Amino acid sequence: MATLNGVEIEDTYVESCEITSSQILVTSLTKDIALANAQRLCRGIITFSPIEGFLGNYVSPSETPDRRPGFYVLLRGMRSMDIDTKKGRETFEEAFTNLLCLTPHMPTIAVFNAVPKEKTAFASDAGQVVRLWGDGFETKAKVQGRQIFHIPVMTGESIIEKSFVITTSFDGALEISCQDISSALLATKAAAERVLDEVKGAFVMHPFGGVNGAKIGAINYKTQKATTTTFLCPTIRNKVPETRVPEGVNTVIEYLVWALDIATVKKGLKVSLDTITRIPGIKRISSFNQGGLWGKHKIQLREIIEKSQNARA
Amino acid sequence: MATLNGVEIEDTYVESCEITSSQILVTSLTKDIALANAQRLCRGIITFSPIEGFLGNYVSPSETPDRRPGFYVLLRGMRSMDIDTKKGRETFEEAFTNLLCLTPHMPTIAVFNAVPKEKTAFASDAGQVVRLWGDGFETKAKVQGRQIFHIPVMTGESIIEKSFVITTSFDGALEISCQDISSALLATKAAAERVLDEVKGAFVMHPFGGVNGAKIGAINYKTQKATTTTFLCPTIRNKVPETRVPEGVNTVIEYLVWALDIATVKKGLKVSLDTITRIPGIKRISSFNQGGLWGKHKIQLREIIEKSQNARA
Amino acid sequence: MATLNGVEIEDTYVESCEITSSQILVTSLTKDIALANAQRLCRGIITFSPIEGFLGNYVSPSETPDRRPGFYVLLRGMRSMDIDTKKGRETFEEAFTNLLCLTPHMPTIAVFNAVPKEKTAFASDAGQVVRLWGDGFETKAKVQGRQIFHIPVMTGESIIEKSFVITTSFDGALEISCQDISSALLATKAAAERVLDEVKGAFVMHPFGGVNGAKIGAINYKTQKATTTTFLCPTIRNKVPETRVPEGVNTVIEYLVWALDIATVKKGLKVSLDTITRIPGIKRISSFNQGGLWGKHKIQLREIIEKSQNARA
Amino acid sequence: MATLNGVEIEDTYVESCEITSSQILVTSLTKDIALANAQRLCRGIITFSPIEGFLGNYVSPSETPDRRPGFYVLLRGMRSMDIDTKKGRETFEEAFTNLLCLTPHMPTIAVFNAVPKEKTAFASDAGQVVRLWGDGFETKAKVQGRQIFHIPVMTGESIIEKSFVITTSFDGALEISCQDISSALLATKAAAERVLDEVKGAFVMHPFGGVNGAKIGAINYKTQKATTTTFLCPTIRNKVPETRVPEGVNTVIEYLVWALDIATVKKGLKVSLDTITRIPGIKRISSFNQGGLWGKHKIQLREIIEKSQNARA
Repeated sequence: MATLNGVEIEDTYVESCEITSSQILVTSLTKDIALANAQRLCRGIITFSPIEGFLGNYVSPSETPDRRPGFYVLLRGMRSMDIDTKKGRETFEEAFTNLLCLTPHMPTIAVFNAVPKEKTAFASDAGQVVRLWGDGFETKAKVQGRQIFHIPVMTGESIIEKSFVITTSFDGALEISCQDISSALLATKAAAERVLDEVKGAFVMHPFGGVNGAKIGAINYKTQKATTTTFLCPTIRNKVPETRVPEGVNTVIEYLVWALDIATVKKGLKVSLDTITRIPGIKRISSFNQGGLWGKHKIQLREIIEKSQNARA
Repeated sequence: MATLNGVEIEDTYVESCEITSSQILVTSLTKDIALANAQRLCRGIITFSPIEGFLGNYVSPSETPDRRPGFYVLLRGMRSMDIDTKKGRETFEEAFTNLLCLTPHMPTIAVFNAVPKEKTAFASDAGQVVRLWGDGFETKAKVQGRQIFHIPVMTGESIIEKSFVITTSFDGALEISCQDISSALLATKAAAERVLDEVKGAFVMHPFGGVNGAKIGAINYKTQKATTTTFLCPTIRNKVPETRVPEGVNTVIEYLVWALDIATVKKGLKVSLDTITRIPGIKRISSFNQGGLWGKHKIQLREIIEKSQNARA
Repeated sequence: MATLNGVEIEDTYVESCEITSSQILVTSLTKDIALANAQRLCRGIITFSPIEGFLGNYVSPSETPDRRPGFYVLLRGMRSMDIDTKKGRETFEEAFTNLLCLTPHMPTIAVFNAVPKEKTAFASDAGQVVRLWGDGFETKAKVQGRQIFHIPVMTGESIIEKSFVITTSFDGALEISCQDISSALLATKAAAERVLDEVKGAFVMHPFGGVNGAKIGAINYKTQKATTTTFLCPTIRNKVPETRVPEGVNTVIEYLVWALDIATVKKGLKVSLDTITRIPGIKRISSFNQGGLWGKHKIQLREIIEKSQNARA
Repeated sequence: MATLNGVEIEDTYVESCEITSSQILVTSLTKDIALANAQRLCRGIITFSPIEGFLGNYVSPSETPDRRPGFYVLLRGMRSMDIDTKKGRETFEEAFTNLLCLTPHMPTIAVFNAVPKEKTAFASDAGQVVRLWGDGFETKAKVQGRQIFHIPVMTGESIIEKSFVITTSFDGALEISCQDISSALLATKAAAERVLDEVKGAFVMHPFGGVNGAKIGAINYKTQKATTTTFLCPTIRNKVPETRVPEGVNTVIEYLVWALDIATVKKGLKVSLDTITRIPGIKRISSFNQGGLWGKHKIQLREIIEKSQNARA
């Protein structure tokens, strides 16, 4: 079995799911306020929400359209919203537009499209709906080739770009076996921070990076669509024959990276693996896959750590 | 006109809306994680969401059922969810239960009912739905007279109480006229922090305390249910005859406090007013009311500041 | 051996050292700024500094002399500054006054004496020196029976109380044996937060609560006054016959609480023990004492945990 | 008079003082701990301390010698420590070494020299003193061409590089006239954050960026070496004929950037000016100089903003 920084990496693959999504840039007067505003859009956890949001890189004022600090946000639809069907796209667009309609409430916010040209798939004039908040007092303008609306609000103006892009994004999940929860939380937080700092275009679950995963379907409660990953739960390892939790492992944590393309997900997983394996108490890293039920794309862990080791050499 | 710390307080009232709600306590392994978990439930802004969440007091391990740090969260439904009708209660209960179903994903979380006995209205066994996540491996237990479920998850166990309470809560909004946005943000953040620290049972919009408000209906876009509060927008004061924004005011911010009873909303507004009026650049405080369209309960600003001044004397 | 929450507590005592000190209250325009200003005074680690500072409770605007948010700071001298001798007191007073002379540089700061009446020992008119910063433009005033100076500064005014109190304070150190550093850091941070939140008058090393300890003198480098606690270092346990680090312990961390009286130190250690022993990966708690070389006061761990268990029963 | 983003910039120069200094890199297990450790070294304010420390850029694990997250710290001596004299260098080296001797107390810390080759002036084997903390159990190693010591400590090991560099650094101070303190604090915090994010090798006063300045000498208290900048204090403008505080300005704040070379100070001031002038409530920017009494190097504000405007065009 391969190892990285002394930690075992199982020779398996990450099952990545491509889902209808959009990527936006949220700027505000200061970095603190931009973060608070962006986080308010980073809600939901996929199993139950029409749209889930994840936090991306900080973008410095030198690189934003309005010269104010900002953060990227990835807005990701449900698996049922198929980008290849008109209905799938429309369902996503409606949920996406509804979410953007919250933004004029947020002090000093501006919201820009942030899907790069090469990932452009379908256009959405979501901004045309959001601007109606202005009740006829909103005004048009151009900033760096972007068509935007200035919407008057109590604190001044709220900015929304006219056109956004509906495209797809990819996920990548690691399954990290740890001695205890302290190591798990320290490791996934450190990895998520490093991804946001170093990997342009990657997104994480802010601030702790990790969640308890789900399996599709159920063993006992047959009508449930998703339930706990019984084979990865330390407290019931003696009751579950197919358990994958060895002695000495008291916590398993699922750690995720998202991006508009698989190459960026891989870069995110690579620095995450380097960070996570350097934290004391991490026992083994794998990825649980559901035989294609979750996603069609495969990311081999072996390939990622080979790159890591070459980079180090 | 009355003044507090040298700032004008208009002689008007806050229009408070009573809405179907529940109040929960979220605990976790550490304060940081408890806060991150609680905030993930504090999503939404009322105009568009079935449930909006607000952050409440930190609760120290000495006072929580599981001796771990926690935060209160107020979950508030939509105006259409009438607690006096079966349908209203059921619509709220469904949205509430869906939201709680996210919690087993969150590392180390426990979720307890936090509605005090005297505010109990209707019971909801939402925990009976959430526990199904355990796929038959969840177990029952009693903690301090509470019936709880231990749900096995990857990081260990997720705790959910069996029964919650559906009741009502109240809001209270101030309209703060400021020289500029810097004063507005400093003041509302300071006020929100102080409310969480000093007023037991009060809730705020964390961390900045303030939003851009909405008016019901529209002047120009007649089909819109809610639009910007045109008469409070500084940038269009010259285009709106009914403007309430005087010269020298470049920002107005709406600041809100919520609680399960009006007395606590008043206490929250009282310390908020004391804090806000001490920040340089605050020009005038009022509350915009919609003639009963928003809510039936009235909180007189005069009454609140009289209490403030007595407390000081 | 006694246990608390399943963790072994050695039957030994904490050796507490009484040292010449003062306690101040730092307030500022907002909580964030008050914290930044207070932390700038919390410098130093005893072995080398004339004064070391520790962070205390947040004090809400309702309870501060100037109705602004504040934090307590404990300023603690060196062991050589004997409060019973004129020279000891003068050496402390000089270092204390020098430190306070930094405060007019800090935006919006006010500094008040915070030694309670019953702990008053010697008075120091340190504020009379600090006020000279005003170059003749400072003014006198009275606030709640306190004589203060308003010193004009660029951002407005800096406030300093005229008289401070020189008294003594006590420390209390735990030695926490952990599976790994992740548990150690999570546990001591959580304990330090809880002490600041629950134990009035207690102080901690903010924000992580823990340090690497020192032993007085040396084994090999005879001229060194203090060196690493060789018998508590995991990486050299095989080279040090007197090691107290068992197999399975990869980190030991020293965790400290300070206060103006031993009773408060005990209360701080009590909630700290309750918090630390609930974090997974904590193996054993003790306190290393130096046979009275460090301090003359003894705090029995047994006594503290008995109180803990009674409180719980 | 020139303007930037609508704010007046006085046509004057910043008086920059070259002072004996060193630059180090502090790494730790996680970013949070690295920041806490680095900040503990960023103590003091020049008027009274032998060494003052300032926070620099975050350095990602991909770029640090030990692959852990880190922060730069600039350690700056007193004006009396002349690098061109043996005594000046020795006085700095002693204070610098004393400060580094605190580091083995800090959990998981490593301290590396961070003076670039081209700024190397004098070598200091400060690490040879710090390593004595290991009491003979410390060991030597090489990391990326650096000679380091592993010092056993309770939490594991503390790392110190053997050789550091004594060189000089430069400061640059702006004087920012603001409508009120809210604008001042928002602006200087935002500027300081942006400098750390965008300008490699620059240092700021973390986290608020601003201080109340000092003038050398006094008007009334002739024996004082430094006193408040009377001509910049808003509350006494009517008592000081030479006041530079116009009506409408209620706060002036001094904002500083430091670096090992003047070019980096200029870059830091450039992005700071761009950020500060975009915050509402900023009235005018200047720099007060003391006719060469403070420093011999001049940075023309005009030159900096010309670059800003070209960069924007």
